[in-house]
Amino acid sequence: MLLVLDGLGGLPREAGGPTELEAASTPNLDRLAAEGQTGLSQPVGLGVTPGSGPGHLALFGYDPVASNIGRGALSALGLGLRLDAGDLGVRLNFCTLDDRGTVVDRRAGRIETGLNRALVKKLNEIEIPGVELEFATESQHRAVLIIRGAYLSPAVQETDPQAVGVPPLEPVPLTATAQHTSAVLRLVTEAVRDCIGGESLANFVLMRGYAGLPELESLSSLYGLQAVCLATYPMYKGLARVAGMAVVDGLDSADEQMTALATAWDDHDYFFLHHKAPDARGEDGDFDAKVSAIEEMDQRLPDLMKLGPDMLVVTGDHSTPSVLREHSWHPVPCLFWGGSVLPDTVDRFGERACGQGSLDVFTAQSIMALMLAHGGRLQKFGA
Amino acid sequence: MLLVLDGLGGLPREAGGPTELEAASTPNLDRLAAEGQTGLSQPVGLGVTPGSGPGHLALFGYDPVASNIGRGALSALGLGLRLDAGDLGVRLNFCTLDDRGTVVDRRAGRIETGLNRALVKKLNEIEIPGVELEFATESQHRAVLIIRGAYLSPAVQETDPQAVGVPPLEPVPLTATAQHTSAVLRLVTEAVRDCIGGESLANFVLMRGYAGLPELESLSSLYGLQAVCLATYPMYKGLARVAGMAVVDGLDSADEQMTALATAWDDHDYFFLHHKAPDARGEDGDFDAKVSAIEEMDQRLPDLMKLGPDMLVVTGDHSTPSVLREHSWHPVPCLFWGGSVLPDTVDRFGERACGQGSLDVFTAQSIMALMLAHGGRLQKFGA
Repeated sequence: MLLVLDGLGGLPREAGGPTELEAASTPNLDRLAAEGQTGLSQPVGLGVTPGSGPGHLALFGYDPVASNIGRGALSALGLGLRLDAGDLGVRLNFCTLDDRGTVVDRRAGRIETGLNRALVKKLNEIEIPGVELEFATESQHRAVLIIRGAYLSPAVQETDPQAVGVPPLEPVPLTATAQHTSAVLRLVTEAVRDCIGGESLANFVLMRGYAGLPELESLSSLYGLQAVCLATYPMYKGLARVAGMAVVDGLDSADEQMTALATAWDDHDYFFLHHKAPDARGEDGDFDAKVSAIEEMDQRLPDLMKLGPDMLVVTGDHSTPSVLREHSWHPVPCLFWGGSVLPDTVDRFGERACGQGSLDVFTAQSIMALMLAHGGRLQKFGA
Repeated sequence: MLLVLDGLGGLPREAGGPTELEAASTPNLDRLAAEGQTGLSQPVGLGVTPGSGPGHLALFGYDPVASNIGRGALSALGLGLRLDAGDLGVRLNFCTLDDRGTVVDRRAGRIETGLNRALVKKLNEIEIPGVELEFATESQHRAVLIIRGAYLSPAVQETDPQAVGVPPLEPVPLTATAQHTSAVLRLVTEAVRDCIGGESLANFVLMRGYAGLPELESLSSLYGLQAVCLATYPMYKGLARVAGMAVVDGLDSADEQMTALATAWDDHDYFFLHHKAPDARGEDGDFDAKVSAIEEMDQRLPDLMKLGPDMLVVTGDHSTPSVLREHSWHPVPCLFWGGSVLPDTVDRFGERACGQGSLDVFTAQSIMALMLAHGGRLQKFGA
């Protein structure tokens, strides 16, 4: 079982003080740390702040750099949209063009999300032969376009000029194999102009972040695992799907996650349980709320352990110190419990405590191999 | 001097208890740890269980993955057979074919080793033009064939169908350059049929694990070392030969190893001393016997130190916890003593103690570079 406390790692609120995790009362995590082995997990590399994509794909055992997911595809996953290998995700900004076609506001005055939804509804009537289009609202001026079809390529110039007073750029192909995609995007921009060009504020879209999904070998194919994801947010379910996990849909609370976990127990042998709150409260800059979010999961641990996992890893996909209000590069507390783990001398779960653990600072991408090894699922290398 | 306690790393017999090394009384190793620097050596990678081949080649400074030795070649080394670069080692199973040529027993009823020897004696009369053949008994139904000659390739289909009720597979070439080897193996199988086809039980052989030795640059060429191996088991002598070490043959006991070490002292500057017993007792699942095997080497250390090594490293090629009865992926206690080593605060030799050492968890392949550096044998990189 992999229990991810999203954004787990933190920093002291004041010099000499504890981090959020150190300040939290976590008797159950502390007991697991005492019985297990600890260290600090490095998601991508020293000094590198990971997004949710690389953070999780590393925890699933993939090279977080080679498997990096581009913005358009990640936005689609975050909205819970269907995105298959070969599809192309595109981030859209509604923008304002003047009557000469010059960009005067790259964000269309940060329109209300309600207007965004109304415009997206119109845009979804666009039809381009040979491809299927799906426009979706993100929030304010931000939207996503998914293009489904054959021979799509992300190697096309972004149309967002990243400046005002100039016209949008053309979606020219950057490689020979991107000519088809370029032609599709030209048709899309013409159709968008026809569709919403008469609007006063949001009368065009700028496109960027073209990206498909990486084609990753599944956990089933790689390791023979029957993996299942218990997460509430679309993004993490999408990342789990990229790794070939089964995904339980419709979970809206930690209670529902725990119930679904128990239900899935007999039919799977790898469980990815995702707890979003520590990251969200860290991004809010709310130290105390992040402490509470950690304590909330700690209190659920006894129920979780009653299921009898052979091997449990508790860590985060990255740090989100509330004093920084965003993801950070700090390595993440990590504990291994069960299997053939040799316990170390650490008896607390926290940043400084885990820094004394016998796993040292180690690469998050190794967590999968260690879990499999401790669970007796790997063969010897060489004779 | 590199002192390898094979399979050194272990695990507690009961929760909260000591490992084999922690339970052992090792005053001499503890003193060296106190005077030196400690850490945990990772032979291949996190979660990877190394065989003896990658375990030792990493300790000699080679990339354990790039230099991996296939089964046929390793079996030949394990039997102490001459295997030169370009030769091909093949694992054989004596098997039983019915009169239609179908495999009815892939292991020929696990024949007695004595019968194996008698059959191998017959097979060694086979002559194939252009190559030299050497058949050798391993045990029960297992044997090895070494083919010596030019242009040999392991890229040939294994003839073991891994199933009964079907005929053996043909040794078809898998690459264009393997055509000669395929032809040789066809002649071998025909000759084997002629030679032992009339036997009731073991009337044919199945072939698999075709492998030659990796062509490694010698320690002499790489580092200017005059290296010598003091080992009792053929496997480790074979691995030392792959690294270009001189090998003292005919050593049957630790006493003889110590005497030979003293004799070799003046003519060499790198000494690989191999102590097999901890691994063997770990694989027996005998915790107490592994403790004794470790203590036995500890008691020899004062004599060894009297020789005056400049630089001593004590570690294992991998862990062999007696509770697991096999090699494992756990990193291995390691101590550096002498040379320009900066001692750390660790004063005991054990898994948990070394986990606190200033070498942290580090890759075994670096041991050679560190030994050379601490021994003053490396030059500055860059100006």
